[in-house]
Amino acid sequence: MNAETKHPREESAKARLDRMPSIRTGDDYVDSLRNRGVTVYLFGETVAEPVDNPMIRPSINALKATYDLAISDPDLATAHSPIIDAPVNRFLHIPTSSEDLVTKNRMQRRMGQITGTCFQRCAGLDTVSVLHSITYDIDQKHGTAYHRRFLDFLAAAQRANIIIGAGMTDPKGDRSKRPHEQADPDMFLHVTRRTERGIYVTGAKAHMTGGLNSHWIAVMPTMNLGEEDSDYAVVGLVPGDAEGISYIYGRQSCDARAFEAGEIDKGNARFGGQETLTVFDDVFIPWEHVLMDGEYEFAQEMVSRFTAYHRASYVCKTGLGDVMVGAAAAIAEMNGAEKASHIKDKLVEMVHLNETIFSSGIASSHEAKPLPSGAWMNDSMLSNVCKHNVTRFPYEISRMAQDIAGGIVVTLPSEADFEHEIAGPILKKYMKGKDDIPVEHRQRMLRLIENMTLGRNAVGYLTESLHGAGSPQAQRIQIARQMDAEGKKKLARDLAGIRD
Amino acid sequence: MNAETKHPREESAKARLDRMPSIRTGDDYVDSLRNRGVTVYLFGETVAEPVDNPMIRPSINALKATYDLAISDPDLATAHSPIIDAPVNRFLHIPTSSEDLVTKNRMQRRMGQITGTCFQRCAGLDTVSVLHSITYDIDQKHGTAYHRRFLDFLAAAQRANIIIGAGMTDPKGDRSKRPHEQADPDMFLHVTRRTERGIYVTGAKAHMTGGLNSHWIAVMPTMNLGEEDSDYAVVGLVPGDAEGISYIYGRQSCDARAFEAGEIDKGNARFGGQETLTVFDDVFIPWEHVLMDGEYEFAQEMVSRFTAYHRASYVCKTGLGDVMVGAAAAIAEMNGAEKASHIKDKLVEMVHLNETIFSSGIASSHEAKPLPSGAWMNDSMLSNVCKHNVTRFPYEISRMAQDIAGGIVVTLPSEADFEHEIAGPILKKYMKGKDDIPVEHRQRMLRLIENMTLGRNAVGYLTESLHGAGSPQAQRIQIARQMDAEGKKKLARDLAGIRD
Amino acid sequence: MNAETKHPREESAKARLDRMPSIRTGDDYVDSLRNRGVTVYLFGETVAEPVDNPMIRPSINALKATYDLAISDPDLATAHSPIIDAPVNRFLHIPTSSEDLVTKNRMQRRMGQITGTCFQRCAGLDTVSVLHSITYDIDQKHGTAYHRRFLDFLAAAQRANIIIGAGMTDPKGDRSKRPHEQADPDMFLHVTRRTERGIYVTGAKAHMTGGLNSHWIAVMPTMNLGEEDSDYAVVGLVPGDAEGISYIYGRQSCDARAFEAGEIDKGNARFGGQETLTVFDDVFIPWEHVLMDGEYEFAQEMVSRFTAYHRASYVCKTGLGDVMVGAAAAIAEMNGAEKASHIKDKLVEMVHLNETIFSSGIASSHEAKPLPSGAWMNDSMLSNVCKHNVTRFPYEISRMAQDIAGGIVVTLPSEADFEHEIAGPILKKYMKGKDDIPVEHRQRMLRLIENMTLGRNAVGYLTESLHGAGSPQAQRIQIARQMDAEGKKKLARDLAGIRD
Amino acid sequence: MNAETKHPREESAKARLDRMPSIRTGDDYVDSLRNRGVTVYLFGETVAEPVDNPMIRPSINALKATYDLAISDPDLATAHSPIIDAPVNRFLHIPTSSEDLVTKNRMQRRMGQITGTCFQRCAGLDTVSVLHSITYDIDQKHGTAYHRRFLDFLAAAQRANIIIGAGMTDPKGDRSKRPHEQADPDMFLHVTRRTERGIYVTGAKAHMTGGLNSHWIAVMPTMNLGEEDSDYAVVGLVPGDAEGISYIYGRQSCDARAFEAGEIDKGNARFGGQETLTVFDDVFIPWEHVLMDGEYEFAQEMVSRFTAYHRASYVCKTGLGDVMVGAAAAIAEMNGAEKASHIKDKLVEMVHLNETIFSSGIASSHEAKPLPSGAWMNDSMLSNVCKHNVTRFPYEISRMAQDIAGGIVVTLPSEADFEHEIAGPILKKYMKGKDDIPVEHRQRMLRLIENMTLGRNAVGYLTESLHGAGSPQAQRIQIARQMDAEGKKKLARDLAGIRD
Repeated sequence: MNAETKHPREESAKARLDRMPSIRTGDDYVDSLRNRGVTVYLFGETVAEPVDNPMIRPSINALKATYDLAISDPDLATAHSPIIDAPVNRFLHIPTSSEDLVTKNRMQRRMGQITGTCFQRCAGLDTVSVLHSITYDIDQKHGTAYHRRFLDFLAAAQRANIIIGAGMTDPKGDRSKRPHEQADPDMFLHVTRRTERGIYVTGAKAHMTGGLNSHWIAVMPTMNLGEEDSDYAVVGLVPGDAEGISYIYGRQSCDARAFEAGEIDKGNARFGGQETLTVFDDVFIPWEHVLMDGEYEFAQEMVSRFTAYHRASYVCKTGLGDVMVGAAAAIAEMNGAEKASHIKDKLVEMVHLNETIFSSGIASSHEAKPLPSGAWMNDSMLSNVCKHNVTRFPYEISRMAQDIAGGIVVTLPSEADFEHEIAGPILKKYMKGKDDIPVEHRQRMLRLIENMTLGRNAVGYLTESLHGAGSPQAQRIQIARQMDAEGKKKLARDLAGIRD
Repeated sequence: MNAETKHPREESAKARLDRMPSIRTGDDYVDSLRNRGVTVYLFGETVAEPVDNPMIRPSINALKATYDLAISDPDLATAHSPIIDAPVNRFLHIPTSSEDLVTKNRMQRRMGQITGTCFQRCAGLDTVSVLHSITYDIDQKHGTAYHRRFLDFLAAAQRANIIIGAGMTDPKGDRSKRPHEQADPDMFLHVTRRTERGIYVTGAKAHMTGGLNSHWIAVMPTMNLGEEDSDYAVVGLVPGDAEGISYIYGRQSCDARAFEAGEIDKGNARFGGQETLTVFDDVFIPWEHVLMDGEYEFAQEMVSRFTAYHRASYVCKTGLGDVMVGAAAAIAEMNGAEKASHIKDKLVEMVHLNETIFSSGIASSHEAKPLPSGAWMNDSMLSNVCKHNVTRFPYEISRMAQDIAGGIVVTLPSEADFEHEIAGPILKKYMKGKDDIPVEHRQRMLRLIENMTLGRNAVGYLTESLHGAGSPQAQRIQIARQMDAEGKKKLARDLAGIRD
Repeated sequence: MNAETKHPREESAKARLDRMPSIRTGDDYVDSLRNRGVTVYLFGETVAEPVDNPMIRPSINALKATYDLAISDPDLATAHSPIIDAPVNRFLHIPTSSEDLVTKNRMQRRMGQITGTCFQRCAGLDTVSVLHSITYDIDQKHGTAYHRRFLDFLAAAQRANIIIGAGMTDPKGDRSKRPHEQADPDMFLHVTRRTERGIYVTGAKAHMTGGLNSHWIAVMPTMNLGEEDSDYAVVGLVPGDAEGISYIYGRQSCDARAFEAGEIDKGNARFGGQETLTVFDDVFIPWEHVLMDGEYEFAQEMVSRFTAYHRASYVCKTGLGDVMVGAAAAIAEMNGAEKASHIKDKLVEMVHLNETIFSSGIASSHEAKPLPSGAWMNDSMLSNVCKHNVTRFPYEISRMAQDIAGGIVVTLPSEADFEHEIAGPILKKYMKGKDDIPVEHRQRMLRLIENMTLGRNAVGYLTESLHGAGSPQAQRIQIARQMDAEGKKKLARDLAGIRD
Repeated sequence: MNAETKHPREESAKARLDRMPSIRTGDDYVDSLRNRGVTVYLFGETVAEPVDNPMIRPSINALKATYDLAISDPDLATAHSPIIDAPVNRFLHIPTSSEDLVTKNRMQRRMGQITGTCFQRCAGLDTVSVLHSITYDIDQKHGTAYHRRFLDFLAAAQRANIIIGAGMTDPKGDRSKRPHEQADPDMFLHVTRRTERGIYVTGAKAHMTGGLNSHWIAVMPTMNLGEEDSDYAVVGLVPGDAEGISYIYGRQSCDARAFEAGEIDKGNARFGGQETLTVFDDVFIPWEHVLMDGEYEFAQEMVSRFTAYHRASYVCKTGLGDVMVGAAAAIAEMNGAEKASHIKDKLVEMVHLNETIFSSGIASSHEAKPLPSGAWMNDSMLSNVCKHNVTRFPYEISRMAQDIAGGIVVTLPSEADFEHEIAGPILKKYMKGKDDIPVEHRQRMLRLIENMTLGRNAVGYLTESLHGAGSPQAQRIQIARQMDAEGKKKLARDLAGIRD
């Protein structure tokens, strides 16, 4: 089977998606990822079948859970799509009310609770949400057909129930230079040539969470662009297994435990996040899948809308926060320390911080407003405030969880030692806490806390909380832009009795 | 005119209120407070006419602004009351939807922006909101007629457009003892005797903000009560000028500046908060105005509902926070320091903290649920989270405002010195900042910052933010009660692979 | 008596000081301030005798305590001066060892404990400490005689046991302009003319704490200077009552309570800080008292050394912190809440923060190094770290003290109401906490907490902690300068295995 | 060779140590660890030769560096021991002055800078420091010969220049029970029988850092003991390879990277910390090596003195903090972001926090006092304050380092991918930052930051900072004990004018 046969280059998304077996369950989803023939590099080798790779699989499981939740809790995880007039997975639903956004936040928290990691599907949802309005706006100005193309694609995607990944973050090279000024023009993804049938793009998207586990990827600009950057002003829809795409898997703390025997030391054996560097080497995109090409003046607004959505999506971390609180409460009990007033006080503080994050997400959704296309968008100030709290509080929550867990969280011997003929019984003797608690439970709970504060899912709970959807300074810039200093100065002047 | 003539003891609220000239404007309100003959102690003397007292007047002005806002911005500050089927001031409106609560929060923020202080009307609103549902619930259990009495009163109050004050916080005496165990039975307000016509109560309510400026006061229990405390389980409606009530005015930082000539040093000359110790000495309440008498088992729920409403009401402090941000931005500009990156960064941080508070208030209102009576109540967890943030962030915002203002905020000579023949010109010479800024503007802005961080309105912005609606520990207790540790432990056990 | 007779313009400090009755006790000090004929503006009037002014006197009392401590605890508050080979008040002693600086810190903490306010004598001590080394260094370069002049002055000052005030902070005008660029040349104090007998200076020094209560004032530059600013590069010694000097008193929060009857509401009736704008209108300084004149290149180093000393002097605030902790512990006890775990925990946190400040002061002194003149100077990095902690922790300590105190700290009626025939007994009844605690004790403790968190001494404990010896950003600049980023990068490169 | 031959059970430390080849260099040290025949469990297997194990070796290297530093910087890392009247490695020197303790702190910081991890030798030093005074005090009371035995041992240890490990932390079992109440008596190490020749002990010591890499281990109680716990009141000196001792290696985050090819992904390839569970199964200790046996009343004081020393020893983390600052500054530069004001500001904050920790360590040492034996001990309040800051600031510093590093710190592909024929060039293209910086440098610096914030040395920099030498609450208890609330209340009462 050659690549051309595999992905007829000009086949429309609709045609391609209609050919796909429809995905309903999580298992369907996993099956849909098999035999795609994607090129994935991991530890210096290409991965034969990502679905079966022990390090990659937990990240697939996390996405799988988004399908299963839609079945087990359809009120939460599905929505009626006006586009196809049918229920769809909420991760494919364009929000058309403030309540839609609030429910999305609840679903995100619930997914965080279920997986304890980044489930990688928010960026795609936030991308299609933005594309709905931005293609509409571009069409209004330029008379283009982007919005119709977008709706066609989305309708097919909703019917096929696929995963859409977001390709946004370019490597950026020298940060003091604009895209067209870079020594290497590929440091930002750009159009290299245009033909009658479509465009070709080259570049890379870094830190992609869902990419490898997605059926389609939407590439889009990562920052504001000027006229000279117009080849960088490109939005396109690409199958994840398109010719020219390759994935290089990012390392995570403790990632290699995935290859060890036993499940305890993994901490969270079922679920994990991931990031890849996704490389686009002269990838073809037929016109039908091009949603922006050169309209550079919309890049900034697009990014700004994306962050308005996506910074509120970080409310998902409150689901992980719930797990942290639960793990801390559980280990305190296993240690026999749950009645100590300082332990109870720390748990309260953890909850307080976690709910503060939740508040800013919910408030941002509640304060949403409609855009001309009919899509609703989060309040940008509060969305930035939400994300900014996310850059701080999980670290504090994590520290308190380690505090409550005790030093043993980082000195516990390996699962294999617990199984060893001689060392095992010694460990089971000395690692006992309260009488009625099996040592293995304590082991597992400690490993979960390690996993989320230092290990693989600490990447998702901590560092991604810091940098995902923009680093802290990016939020501060947005807050500064929207703070209405003049209006506030006027309030102060009025009260101070200053009449101008 | 003797007291008996003045307040016919059994006259119903309806009759009494119907006799009142209807209040429409802020000026009407001020007029309505004149000649009430209330007993007010201040600096060791009784105050002849509180309305004309320079220290008391700013607190009246703050309440006055609630009337004026209803006229200038009726969408925000009025609501359609189903009780009288007419528009009413929103401070008298029982919330019947989540949106009602959100709009209330917005109105509170706006009032904070307008007055820069505590405008004292929230506790009364939150009290009637609670009474709506709690009287309903008591009636359901005991077959009493409290809810009907309450609705009659509220209808009359809405028509007359009066201020209702909340009398909740008893002095408490020895905090390790319950009400009936106190050496002095009056440390909590209680029924001393019952007659055919009504009840008599004795006790005091501390820290009352609106009391003195209210037309009617609702007294209610301040904590959970047991069977032996049943005489303390009393809710009653009393005119603010009822026989037996007296007010002792609390001191505030810099309060006496109100008596100085000039307005600059007052910082915020027009508006101020207040607190009084309100003393009830054998005050008669006719049965028609009694809304609880002995149903002690409802005390805790009543307090808990009150805090669910009232802790979200502290979102008002974001209005004061807006003023602080504005004042800091303004003084930075006057000092010529507005372009310094650390100044801009501090302003962003102030806004971030302020909007975080706003978020938790809005989220708490958004997550409101209806009670059996039809009134809607804030989500209690998020309301506590809101208030808990209020106990922290205003202090931080205030510190940053002082940082930006410079040391001159506490070393600026008096307004009188600026007027002095010799000292005045010297001060005007040396206190000059940027060329085009009148020195007086700088003076005024510094005094406003002093006012809100150390002076009279620092009481409202800081200490009241700490203790109003319950001290920090009270919120932590509520958060602990509602944190669902068991549910969260289950999440952690599931992820850790612990099967019970 | 005309001014010329009063202060023979060219009389040497030695002659003048030798004529003074020697000051030994605090009472001597107070007497020494009488009849100086200084011009002081306060509330739009000139003050006849500052010593007897109720608002000014508490600030004099604070300085008085530095004399009394030298008598009651000579090990702490005196030192052997090699300059006059005799014991001197430690506030006049040039530190010649690390231990001298540590003992100075201890004395400062003790003074803070005794007075609960700014005792205003540190800036003068830190000024003479700097002058010792900087005059030496200038002489080495320029062959001037400043160091000898300085030693003569200091010897006389030590013998007479006087207060020396520091005149540093110029008003600065437009902060974006250098001294010689200002529209008004007087925005920085400068030499206006030079004669055979001396120089004349004009300008003002803002925020002076000790100034008015000092016998002599040392004026010096407040920032780095360039060649065109050389007239601003002036250090001179001036009697506090010199012709041409006037003082305009700065307002403080609650300052006017000093004029009220009763002592309770003052919070801390005996002690207070102060700040004045000190104006120099063509003030003559004979050459013998000039210690810098035009050597602009030493200005920056002088300021830098001053801050190295003075930022560690802010360890005094730990003495005030001790009072805050004690007041919080005392009020908790009076409220019957001292056993609550959250109260105990807050007290621990207050102590922890307070001792952290103390640590950085002590460490800075311990790490002191000698300068060429033989004077020892604090480690500048740690001194800046000390002050930077002082800009944060007192605010946090203050917030916790208010938390523990309860809302009554800002709603307590006036002392006069407690004395009122009717209101008094009511207040005594309802303001009672634990049975065995007199209500007046509770009143006094609450007023002390108000005084230090919102009132007059909050200026000293909070805002002065923020801005005194340089605002937070000034410390950050110093820390940036001294952080040795290159050395630290090398450490990281070595560990990362980067070989250049 | 049987065990009896290997370690003649009654051979004195002196005899045994005198037989050892003297250790001078780091290489000597590594050699001295070979062929000891210790039982070590790791990943379910016994380790043939720990010295050659890739996971264990970095922890040995860290200790090795303590020998090398003594040669390269003898002023810092050696001291003159009065016990053998010769220079010794400072890690074996009993401090006999405040300066000794300060220099020890400096050495600890330097070691942290050199290794970027826990170098494991402080606990042993702090143990011998305590034993010096506590054996002296026991002898004074009981007429025992512990102090002489101790000095004999230490003299031999100093001559042989060995590593002494501290065995303190018992597993503790059910934390609500005392040692003698535990279901399993071995949950605390205890004497099982006594013979004419010595005692036998059984139990385990958890979280031992230096244990496996030590020549001798001092076991001692971990908490206060009562009379019924007297068999637990045991201090003994045991060779690390004594019969009956086994070690079970604790897992650390990313530990298995030690077994991967390449050095880059290890982050810090040379140095690492470690912890073992050290098991004592009927281990014989001849009387000559017993330093406490049943004097239970000294257990609490012993622990308290140990923490006074050891909590100040955590100043070592400022050395790691220096590395973090350096790494953050370096990566900012490599990213081309070093000029951004928010980056510079974060670096300043990191330094400020780091130096604050340093201050409290230095101050604690400066304030040291002598004990009856002549050993000097850190000020306990400040030592606890030091450690308490260590439980907080490294987490904050670490968060800021990740902030500055960018998200790439957790998404960077593996070293093997950088070496891959196809993926390698792609990575080198897209991972380029500033032009003149080799991609490998960026890779290495990111891995170092990962290592210290999430990876193997995050255990040492973060979690060990939290729990080592006692968890946060342990410090709070000590601070509470030493805060002198009564003295502070008196200060407040005096200022408030309360006369008792």
